[in-house]
Amino acid sequence: MRPSLRKPTQMRPVSMETGVNKWAEGSCLIKMGGTTVLCTATVDLNQPTWKRLQNKTGGWVTAEYSMLPRANATRKTRDNIMKDHRSAEISRIIGRALRSVVDMEALGRHTITIDCDVIQADGGTRCASITGGFVALVLAVRWLLNTGRIHENPVHEHVAAISAGLWHNELILDLDYEEDSTAEMDANFVVSESGRFIEVQSTGEQHPFEKSQLGELMDMAATATQKLIELQKQVLE
Amino acid sequence: MRPSLRKPTQMRPVSMETGVNKWAEGSCLIKMGGTTVLCTATVDLNQPTWKRLQNKTGGWVTAEYSMLPRANATRKTRDNIMKDHRSAEISRIIGRALRSVVDMEALGRHTITIDCDVIQADGGTRCASITGGFVALVLAVRWLLNTGRIHENPVHEHVAAISAGLWHNELILDLDYEEDSTAEMDANFVVSESGRFIEVQSTGEQHPFEKSQLGELMDMAATATQKLIELQKQVLE
Amino acid sequence: MRPSLRKPTQMRPVSMETGVNKWAEGSCLIKMGGTTVLCTATVDLNQPTWKRLQNKTGGWVTAEYSMLPRANATRKTRDNIMKDHRSAEISRIIGRALRSVVDMEALGRHTITIDCDVIQADGGTRCASITGGFVALVLAVRWLLNTGRIHENPVHEHVAAISAGLWHNELILDLDYEEDSTAEMDANFVVSESGRFIEVQSTGEQHPFEKSQLGELMDMAATATQKLIELQKQVLE
Amino acid sequence: MRPSLRKPTQMRPVSMETGVNKWAEGSCLIKMGGTTVLCTATVDLNQPTWKRLQNKTGGWVTAEYSMLPRANATRKTRDNIMKDHRSAEISRIIGRALRSVVDMEALGRHTITIDCDVIQADGGTRCASITGGFVALVLAVRWLLNTGRIHENPVHEHVAAISAGLWHNELILDLDYEEDSTAEMDANFVVSESGRFIEVQSTGEQHPFEKSQLGELMDMAATATQKLIELQKQVLE
Amino acid sequence: MRPSLRKPTQMRPVSMETGVNKWAEGSCLIKMGGTTVLCTATVDLNQPTWKRLQNKTGGWVTAEYSMLPRANATRKTRDNIMKDHRSAEISRIIGRALRSVVDMEALGRHTITIDCDVIQADGGTRCASITGGFVALVLAVRWLLNTGRIHENPVHEHVAAISAGLWHNELILDLDYEEDSTAEMDANFVVSESGRFIEVQSTGEQHPFEKSQLGELMDMAATATQKLIELQKQVLE
Amino acid sequence: MRPSLRKPTQMRPVSMETGVNKWAEGSCLIKMGGTTVLCTATVDLNQPTWKRLQNKTGGWVTAEYSMLPRANATRKTRDNIMKDHRSAEISRIIGRALRSVVDMEALGRHTITIDCDVIQADGGTRCASITGGFVALVLAVRWLLNTGRIHENPVHEHVAAISAGLWHNELILDLDYEEDSTAEMDANFVVSESGRFIEVQSTGEQHPFEKSQLGELMDMAATATQKLIELQKQVLE
Repeated sequence: MRPSLRKPTQMRPVSMETGVNKWAEGSCLIKMGGTTVLCTATVDLNQPTWKRLQNKTGGWVTAEYSMLPRANATRKTRDNIMKDHRSAEISRIIGRALRSVVDMEALGRHTITIDCDVIQADGGTRCASITGGFVALVLAVRWLLNTGRIHENPVHEHVAAISAGLWHNELILDLDYEEDSTAEMDANFVVSESGRFIEVQSTGEQHPFEKSQLGELMDMAATATQKLIELQKQVLE
Repeated sequence: MRPSLRKPTQMRPVSMETGVNKWAEGSCLIKMGGTTVLCTATVDLNQPTWKRLQNKTGGWVTAEYSMLPRANATRKTRDNIMKDHRSAEISRIIGRALRSVVDMEALGRHTITIDCDVIQADGGTRCASITGGFVALVLAVRWLLNTGRIHENPVHEHVAAISAGLWHNELILDLDYEEDSTAEMDANFVVSESGRFIEVQSTGEQHPFEKSQLGELMDMAATATQKLIELQKQVLE
Repeated sequence: MRPSLRKPTQMRPVSMETGVNKWAEGSCLIKMGGTTVLCTATVDLNQPTWKRLQNKTGGWVTAEYSMLPRANATRKTRDNIMKDHRSAEISRIIGRALRSVVDMEALGRHTITIDCDVIQADGGTRCASITGGFVALVLAVRWLLNTGRIHENPVHEHVAAISAGLWHNELILDLDYEEDSTAEMDANFVVSESGRFIEVQSTGEQHPFEKSQLGELMDMAATATQKLIELQKQVLE
Repeated sequence: MRPSLRKPTQMRPVSMETGVNKWAEGSCLIKMGGTTVLCTATVDLNQPTWKRLQNKTGGWVTAEYSMLPRANATRKTRDNIMKDHRSAEISRIIGRALRSVVDMEALGRHTITIDCDVIQADGGTRCASITGGFVALVLAVRWLLNTGRIHENPVHEHVAAISAGLWHNELILDLDYEEDSTAEMDANFVVSESGRFIEVQSTGEQHPFEKSQLGELMDMAATATQKLIELQKQVLE
Repeated sequence: MRPSLRKPTQMRPVSMETGVNKWAEGSCLIKMGGTTVLCTATVDLNQPTWKRLQNKTGGWVTAEYSMLPRANATRKTRDNIMKDHRSAEISRIIGRALRSVVDMEALGRHTITIDCDVIQADGGTRCASITGGFVALVLAVRWLLNTGRIHENPVHEHVAAISAGLWHNELILDLDYEEDSTAEMDANFVVSESGRFIEVQSTGEQHPFEKSQLGELMDMAATATQKLIELQKQVLE
Repeated sequence: MRPSLRKPTQMRPVSMETGVNKWAEGSCLIKMGGTTVLCTATVDLNQPTWKRLQNKTGGWVTAEYSMLPRANATRKTRDNIMKDHRSAEISRIIGRALRSVVDMEALGRHTITIDCDVIQADGGTRCASITGGFVALVLAVRWLLNTGRIHENPVHEHVAAISAGLWHNELILDLDYEEDSTAEMDANFVVSESGRFIEVQSTGEQHPFEKSQLGELMDMAATATQKLIELQKQVLE
């Protein structure tokens, strides 16, 4: 039995609230069980410097992921937060996930930065950041459309993410902190609305895994992310 | 007429919510108008290193103030947030304010860190941090008392803070961002439950001021902070 | 009796010497008792970058305050000096104080940086920096006038600063290090030639204070700063 | 046809040379086509600090990956190399891969650091680092055994890694730089001697992929890594 | 008898190999006994920023010297490598040495950066870096000539370097690590093809020296560097 | 004719003043023409950490050299001062020079740090730092003797330093800034009271030099440093 008493393929309760920041062009507060992430989208009316220097066309989407000092059971110093390579790695993953569904030409010469600040961490923070960050991104894109700065929606489909793993020899979905810290193997899946995979990351440092196990987890993730995408659509209506 | 349509001595609506972080020993989400600050208190069951090295007795209270990147109208990079001397200065003020009402001997060999993370900024963030941070501090102290680690309440009175200033030649209370950015002179007051002043900071870079003007602002602040302390007491009951 | 054997409102001997640096456009070595600060003014014939980027007119005055490693009883490492938030806070105060008496339009598109390097510290270093820094500033402005780069004096009045505080329940002026480290409350006052206050900073972490006490200190500071301004005028003749 | 003229499942020529550093307890220079990585293993006769502080038993294996400034077509400054989050991410992957085949208790209270310095980069540097780093690790473990510091081999099986991806709609193995920079999707696989997967990382930012495609790549990687392990064994004889 | 069994004026075996990096415009792997340094030359088709800002003509040659973490008997952390002032000092020496034989006008508006990465250190790394770095520099200059970017060879003569010192009261040439760490005095000499001295650095912290001793070492160095220059010529043919 | 109108072997006027810092265990303000350096000696009643960790006996002498921001004709930012490799190199030279005349065993388990802060720079700052730093060192050693912490003078002879160089094809002594910046070759000499050389650094980036020229400069330096040592003795009486 999972510590959370959930069934193997049962996700935690999810909620997303938009308009939670009066300054940001888009914002979404996502909660997945005990995990809370504040996602804000900031529009910069310029290309990123590296694109301009290379005389490239189109825009860019980037992301920054960070924890508040007491998002976890033990406090982390702000210095350590800044130097945290894990956060930098997750920022890169979120950025790739969101860019995969955006047409950079249609975005025009604009840069959208998605800040994902983890208010409270209880497993699955990178996945919540992608799912909630997508909502903030869509709102920022609407702002660009509504203010007449772009004329075509550059977002061609939804994207969401979910974790899964092997825990006590059972394949389970959406691990919370307690499950994650005792799992034999854990994986994260970024999936598009069309059901294809954008990113698969699977690590079995304690317990190497078989191809078939990863396959099963991919199926579980495909189903779960469609539910998350359904929720994104409700929130964005 | 103030941009906020308030009367000169009228504060913005204030709310404080406790128990907003499942990991922290104390937490309080304070809102003053458009300003939102998340205050968490972390208890470390040790003295700070500098006290131990100097063979001192008793505990310590310290504070860290920081803005989320998009707490303001324009986004601030995380690098700039880390290097921000204004934040460091405010952290020192919050720490001094909270220490002024704590008996370090009664606190025992413990360190309490108050993290004040500004979720949304609209003027008066340092004052909200002190007022809300005090609530988180009291909750952390209760945790120490309830778990039998200390036996006497080291907090001997409440403390709260409010801003005030000279705007269009009128003395006004609790400036929001719009008022603050056009004020001739602005001041911050940290006041104890017993009505005495712990910190007075007043700057008239654009417009030097008279002793009598500062005196009037002190009176306004004394009244307003007693209202905030009343609210702290309700929330902590 | 004060450790320094001075009367409550008695300042320490003050001297200011100009022309102490052959390269700087203005320089002043100020001594207040055991406190020695070297103030140099550097003229940059450009606006600061942030003004230019915002298409603003006029110039700017900024200040940097720092201690030499052995300015104090214990040596401070250079790394710690660089990261010192107290120095950053004081730099900001000095800058604000000096800007308050300068007309930025009349200064033209120039930037003046006042470096205040504390050679020896014995209390009141920030106040000495403001008083001596003003002299260096005036000399740099004269250099701009004499070389024909500006045609109108942008400095509209003098400014000086002094510390005061509550020590052994007595209100005293111009605290030296020994007095400062045992004071119940200490304050710093920046006052203009016209007798108005530009900055009041008062902290009673150990001992909250009354409005009337701050009022008395303001009166003491107003008198003392006029004497310092008198001295500045003699030196600048 | 691949730019490298190789067949889809054809690896580049691989060589590994041991004993290439007179100081290191283990070393291996691995070449995979145009990619050259110098792997050195350093034995520290202590536990890592974090293990000691937590009163844990056993040892640790960690890795650091870095590029020389001119390992690539364009030179990278040393400052940028140090701040490179991609390198930090890869260091973490190498460390996890090598730890997955080491019994930390049998390693005793020792720390082995594997430095992977990329002399020349031409695609697949992280995989070459794992494959060559394993050889350096085994040599360092032998040094511990030969000097009588441990008495049991803590390495329970070999580990190797290979990249694969989707390029011009074809699944190919061991991408070189030219192929990698134009691939629709790329993946890295860390595989154990027993044929199980330790890490799967697959990204299709430009082109989401199907479960079946990842499955095919896993099969290709399983075959290729066994060949690499064969080579490791020859070199280590 | 020297630990290396060499005669006082005997150099260690030297080899230089060119074309060791497929990306760099020039490269040379130099070995002097147990010391191995990889020298790569990178051509930037621009002046350095500081020259452009000062409206200067001509190009520039600069160098960066660094050790790999395990180049020495004990591992050095990458953080410490970056902060290493000794490396910075040596980088400056290498740059000066190479610039002394280059006509900056004839080099045109190009910048050549010589990276000297010490793969294995066994004494004399700075001298090997200069001698090998010169070869990489010449190759980069040939690349500029061959691609028609410059039309005249800016290198007017060869340059090489050698160490020497006082060991057990005997003057010896080309100290290895063991000799260097027990020497009473050590010196480094940069000498041009025309037999003149470009840099002499001699330190007798443990044992002050006489003018005549330095003179003898200069003679030894003059002879040895001519042999190194002979070798450079062979390699560059 | 030299710009300073001095004869080739004529030094600038030199003065040294002791007791210029009330906190430091030793201090000396040295002026050589337009160059002014404040040297303070700080005694730490412990060995340096690295000596203690290696279980070594005896003490240590170290030095730190730094420029104030406006010590030169153009202002240097404090950030650049901290990162300045030239300063780090000079700090190492000063430390070596002073250690060469101190018996570390007789110094006991104490660390003396000599801070050399350049108040005004006009050529020869490193040499002035060594000459003045030696005086501060001797005073700190006397403090150790007078307070009974050591019982034997660990300083076995004086040390001083002077610059020299080739300027307009003439060998000249003690170059000021104007001469230094147009010299063909410049050198620094650290010489002991017994007339032997502790450090010789000679660079002819613009103009390689002959052995005989360096020899002549060494003779000039030997004479000049004896005069400086004479002055040190007068000041220390």
